Amino acid sequence: MLKRVFLGRPFRSDAMGHTLLPKWIALPVFASDPLSSVAYATQEILLILTLGGVAYLHLAPWVAAAVVVLLAVVVLSYRQVVRAYPSGGGSYEVVARNIGPRAGLVVAAALLVDYVMTVAVSVAAGVDNIISAIPELNPHRVAVNVGFVVVLTAMNLRGVRESGRAFAVPTYAFIAGVMVMVVLGLTRAVLGDVPQAESAHYGIHAENVGLSTLALAFLMLRAFSSGCTALTGVEAISNGVPAFRKPKSLNAARTMSAMGALAITMFVGVTALAMISHTRVVEDTCDLIGFRGDCTRDPQRTVIAQVSAAVFGNDSFMFFYLQAATALILILAANTAFNGFPLLSSILAQDRYLPRQLHTRGDRLAFSNGVVLLALIAGGLIVAFDGSTTRLIQLYIVGVFTSFTLCQTGMVRHWNRELAATTTAAERRRVHRARLINAFGALLTGVVLVVVMVTKFTHGAYLVVIAIPVLCVLMAGIHRHYAAARAELRVEPDDDAALPSRVHAIVLVSSWHKATQRALLFARATKPDTLTALTVNIDESDTRALLAEWSTLDVDVPLKVIESPYREITRPVLSYIKQMLSNGPRDVVNVYIPEYVVGHWWENVLHNQSSLRLKGRLLFEPGVMVTSVPWQLRSTAHRDLTRIEHSPGDVRSGITRSESESLAAEKNGYAVKTAPRQ
Amino acid sequence: MLKRVFLGRPFRSDAMGHTLLPKWIALPVFASDPLSSVAYATQEILLILTLGGVAYLHLAPWVAAAVVVLLAVVVLSYRQVVRAYPSGGGSYEVVARNIGPRAGLVVAAALLVDYVMTVAVSVAAGVDNIISAIPELNPHRVAVNVGFVVVLTAMNLRGVRESGRAFAVPTYAFIAGVMVMVVLGLTRAVLGDVPQAESAHYGIHAENVGLSTLALAFLMLRAFSSGCTALTGVEAISNGVPAFRKPKSLNAARTMSAMGALAITMFVGVTALAMISHTRVVEDTCDLIGFRGDCTRDPQRTVIAQVSAAVFGNDSFMFFYLQAATALILILAANTAFNGFPLLSSILAQDRYLPRQLHTRGDRLAFSNGVVLLALIAGGLIVAFDGSTTRLIQLYIVGVFTSFTLCQTGMVRHWNRELAATTTAAERRRVHRARLINAFGALLTGVVLVVVMVTKFTHGAYLVVIAIPVLCVLMAGIHRHYAAARAELRVEPDDDAALPSRVHAIVLVSSWHKATQRALLFARATKPDTLTALTVNIDESDTRALLAEWSTLDVDVPLKVIESPYREITRPVLSYIKQMLSNGPRDVVNVYIPEYVVGHWWENVLHNQSSLRLKGRLLFEPGVMVTSVPWQLRSTAHRDLTRIEHSPGDVRSGITRSESESLAAEKNGYAVKTAPRQ
Repeated sequence: MLKRVFLGRPFRSDAMGHTLLPKWIALPVFASDPLSSVAYATQEILLILTLGGVAYLHLAPWVAAAVVVLLAVVVLSYRQVVRAYPSGGGSYEVVARNIGPRAGLVVAAALLVDYVMTVAVSVAAGVDNIISAIPELNPHRVAVNVGFVVVLTAMNLRGVRESGRAFAVPTYAFIAGVMVMVVLGLTRAVLGDVPQAESAHYGIHAENVGLSTLALAFLMLRAFSSGCTALTGVEAISNGVPAFRKPKSLNAARTMSAMGALAITMFVGVTALAMISHTRVVEDTCDLIGFRGDCTRDPQRTVIAQVSAAVFGNDSFMFFYLQAATALILILAANTAFNGFPLLSSILAQDRYLPRQLHTRGDRLAFSNGVVLLALIAGGLIVAFDGSTTRLIQLYIVGVFTSFTLCQTGMVRHWNRELAATTTAAERRRVHRARLINAFGALLTGVVLVVVMVTKFTHGAYLVVIAIPVLCVLMAGIHRHYAAARAELRVEPDDDAALPSRVHAIVLVSSWHKATQRALLFARATKPDTLTALTVNIDESDTRALLAEWSTLDVDVPLKVIESPYREITRPVLSYIKQMLSNGPRDVVNVYIPEYVVGHWWENVLHNQSSLRLKGRLLFEPGVMVTSVPWQLRSTAHRDLTRIEHSPGDVRSGITRSESESLAAEKNGYAVKTAPRQ
Repeated sequence: MLKRVFLGRPFRSDAMGHTLLPKWIALPVFASDPLSSVAYATQEILLILTLGGVAYLHLAPWVAAAVVVLLAVVVLSYRQVVRAYPSGGGSYEVVARNIGPRAGLVVAAALLVDYVMTVAVSVAAGVDNIISAIPELNPHRVAVNVGFVVVLTAMNLRGVRESGRAFAVPTYAFIAGVMVMVVLGLTRAVLGDVPQAESAHYGIHAENVGLSTLALAFLMLRAFSSGCTALTGVEAISNGVPAFRKPKSLNAARTMSAMGALAITMFVGVTALAMISHTRVVEDTCDLIGFRGDCTRDPQRTVIAQVSAAVFGNDSFMFFYLQAATALILILAANTAFNGFPLLSSILAQDRYLPRQLHTRGDRLAFSNGVVLLALIAGGLIVAFDGSTTRLIQLYIVGVFTSFTLCQTGMVRHWNRELAATTTAAERRRVHRARLINAFGALLTGVVLVVVMVTKFTHGAYLVVIAIPVLCVLMAGIHRHYAAARAELRVEPDDDAALPSRVHAIVLVSSWHKATQRALLFARATKPDTLTALTVNIDESDTRALLAEWSTLDVDVPLKVIESPYREITRPVLSYIKQMLSNGPRDVVNVYIPEYVVGHWWENVLHNQSSLRLKGRLLFEPGVMVTSVPWQLRSTAHRDLTRIEHSPGDVRSGITRSESESLAAEKNGYAVKTAPRQ
């Protein structure tokens, strides 16, 4: 039926092959967020436990162990997501396909909230670690935070080209630093030279002493919830499978395992060192007995800074090295959100839950709006919560575990379906095992979600509990709108598809110049049934001058003058066109508007405004089309129209184009194929 | 040579006759600004004199007398402007025509600054008088000020239709109130029952006691400069001559005289009563000895409030009546600036010193920008100066007297030219006398300008001295830009005016729906030399679906698919078009873009974005025109496109159109005449 004739050079389907990421680069690209969580997870556990005084700190290893188990289960679960859904849709795709679009929407909303919180928490934690090294910055905490958000926004708006190496250096530097610290610290402890944190001798004003069993259980659950921040970002790899080298799924799954092993090792190591060195952190600095300095003003150092100072020495090179690496990887994790946002938006837009233009990656305008919106909300949260990591983290975990739980549930359904289609016993056993892992993951993350909701609700999580449904409703509304428009636009078999009988061309003339001349020539070239030059009499003397000039011209097109008693343009022109169309209902009117094309944005303020308004109004009239005939003013010569624009997230979605490649495509032409009707 | 054939009904040249203003309505419409100055002029004189203590208050009548003389001279001078330049261009037109465009630009900048200051000062003074009646509002002074600016902005943005009557009521109420107060107060004084102001017994901590003669002279000059605020707005009538009934000039001149007489009477009356009742006002309330209340917080009442309380009694009906009328006329005066701004902008735009679209009154968008800008600057000044009338007034007078001086100088030149053209002795005598008045006016206002600059410079006037040149440079830049564009666009005799040889039509297709269908039909109706449907392969599966659907359609247009390896739209399409044009350099390409037309602004976010960007880029390509083929979505049915929009300033420029009138024009069609070439 359909014969495809290929014109031009064949499609370069291999064009993107060499841009894919090897595992050792993919790890830092996708894992900066989960690995950086190590920088604050231990601290959050200790903060909650010390609400009950120093006595309950011995529970920390148990809480940490629970977090490790959860982390391992979630990593295992997502390994299976990666293998089953290699398209990069991640949790959203799993849920939307297996549970349904509504649940998918909830996951999408949760993930969007997540991105916002990733920016806010990571930047705040990064600044915490900078202040731990340079306490003089403490009075300017919020300003420094906002500064980093602004820098990230600017970088992403400019579209600085990402490279895998830019991710690799700080991530591996952080991993190496933490590993060295853990090994050195534990070795020293084994050899009897136990590192002592600066806060080891501090006492703690406990708010809740002598807790009942129930209250103690609640305290442990709260500590556990806080520790779950270690799991944030684990799903990142599942969104980036397309960027891996082949075999994509396998490589992604292996990277996932490596990431999980690293995260667990570092988390356990830091927690162990914090226990050994008797590191103390509290929510309210004034609860510390023996704190040096003014507890209302001076900051406590982060757990990682205290441990590092205890192991390496307070002003040692390694201490500053580790603080710098920690701050860097945290800022990098924030940048992850700026990258992940457009990827998720693109998928949501494809499913028509977000404006369509977010789907096409080339559209920087829409994308820039996303970056600015993300920055504004995250920056607003940072300012509202005074840049306090601990307070911001309360909002973080609800979204994360909402998507975890729904994703694992979706995977269980996925395996159920697989099971129905599987016949061999070996296969069935494999699917059974996979389903078990995801079911366990779903159960565990579901329980954690409830725990997090209960323990964190009044501490700020309620904001997220409001935000997610609001986002869902908004996206559902957009979806409905698109569906309605689609239905309205569908071509029905009995739709009238007759050609218009006549075409009337009208050239709008304000004065006689090259742009008008070109519009008139172009209009005549289309050989319309009638051709009229039209001017509106806004100013009597201008019109008279135009008429006089017209009479001297070598143009055989009649110039019609419409009177405009109220000095408007739109109404008289519209009235003229309506009258024209009323004579021939099957006719169409083509209005030619000479437009100046200018090189500088501010020149647009000076030109074309009234014709743009007229045009906007003309489009409301059925039977009218509007043709812009451009005249390029000399200032357009300055415009560099060949510049390649890079979008954040390009590396993650497997797009890395060089100027030279793209210009070659430009020069050689893009492949064109024709599908003619037989 | 040129034969005009009139089509349709003849032009209703009389359409605007009955909307012109009788004198008794024109007075309040144009004079609310100068008359309202009475509310603060006396106070400003007293404020400066009391810097030298109570002793120098006896100089107030001399200062006031000087102001009265100046006011009389300026009114006489402007009477001549009105008669010589009845077109409503006012000072700007006089200066631009007689001195030159550069001087005209200075006047224009001064007037624009004036409008800003009129809003700021009038609103601040209005709020002063409200607070004098309701002192409880004092802590919220700035908020109340900003509130009024917001209300004025909203009113003017919505385009509430002005009516002469709306001006008449508060203006005549104010005049009547002040007149009753002056007559009653003076009568009581003559009868021996001298009214005593509440502040009559206050002493004053004088900063400057025992001034040297030079210092005293300087103090008097400062007081005189402040008193000159009574002259602000005097030129308003000269901008509104076209709105008067015939004989326009004569009526305007008479109204001018009436306005001058009223302003002088009220100013003298209020000043006399303030002296008689021993009213005291000082810059710093804490300098008042015996002030009741907390001098750091509680406000002094305005002079007009103190006098009115002394004459009518403190809580009398008449006191509240006069305060209400004063506040109202001041707010009305602020509204004057919102009206005057578009009128002046329109004239400046016509001379190409401001963006062209400001010239066409119908363009609400550009106009709205002006209103918002005016409100932002005036509001910003009010906030920056804490809503203090006294501090704001320092910025007011420089601009006013700059335009006065230049205008009178221009008039002297005008008469010089007239004189050269006059022959009869009687005429010559008349012109001689007119020139003498304007020369005296120019000299006097010039001296005052120097005095104001010297005495006010450090008190804030320097801001205006910076702002006026900045505005001038900006407007000159815009003018140069337009001149350059004009030169670039001029059609030269040897310009190539050959018809394009072939027209290639390209219809951009994203999917098959009614809008695409219509675009294809319209494109075919224009009978192009070639017709192609073009789609960009952004998503392989979407493209496949489109190809499959296309093959089932009853359309004999070939669908070409351009590959887009980087998922862009613009570059591949552009590359295709360039290739097409390279085959025939005299060809043109007409790109048809199906566009959705939507009824709600937010729907625009959801549609058309990528096609708009593509279009913007296509216009940079010579030999390309872009045709929008609209498809009206159902939501457009909600849009009321017949609503008449009123622009502020309509009444002043003689435009008052009713819905019925305008709809009649719509129905009957606008007059059209054709100028065919012979």
